[in-house]
Amino acid sequence: MYQARIHVTLKPTVNDPQGLTVLASLRRLGFGNAGDMRVGKYLLVKVDEADRAAAEQAVTEMCQKLLANPVIEDFNFELEEVKESSPAS
Amino acid sequence: MYQARIHVTLKPTVNDPQGLTVLASLRRLGFGNAGDMRVGKYLLVKVDEADRAAAEQAVTEMCQKLLANPVIEDFNFELEEVKESSPAS
Repeated sequence: MYQARIHVTLKPTVNDPQGLTVLASLRRLGFGNAGDMRVGKYLLVKVDEADRAAAEQAVTEMCQKLLANPVIEDFNFELEEVKESSPAS
Repeated sequence: MYQARIHVTLKPTVNDPQGLTVLASLRRLGFGNAGDMRVGKYLLVKVDEADRAAAEQAVTEMCQKLLANPVIEDFNFELEEVKESSPAS
């Protein structure tokens, strides 16, 4: 089983109104040193596959089909092997 | 100047309806191997501070005051020193 940590971010050329709003709020709170805010998603999912290649393939498909919008977003992920939480029988 | 990469995640004991909904959608799309979905935020912000300690302090305060809800969310971040994008004059 693999733990996937997926980052979904807007492509650099895409406008990020959410980021601009958060940045404006930071400025209003006195953080004049903040700039270039971008807001993305961070998704954690466990994939029940025995080998890394299969897990990688599955997560890539999940991102392409549902988790990211390929027109405006990029995604990348890392995989970490984890033990099943249930004891081996 | 420092580039901060901030992860804001729901605390493990907090229910994550967004994650459950995304997981249900993955299942409907045929990803029976997916489980334990959690959805968090990934925030990128540049901090105009000369030294790392000041930048760390600033980002911690941003998270505590605006970016994360300390009642239900955890945050962590990493800092990377970056050059100013404008040429040195």
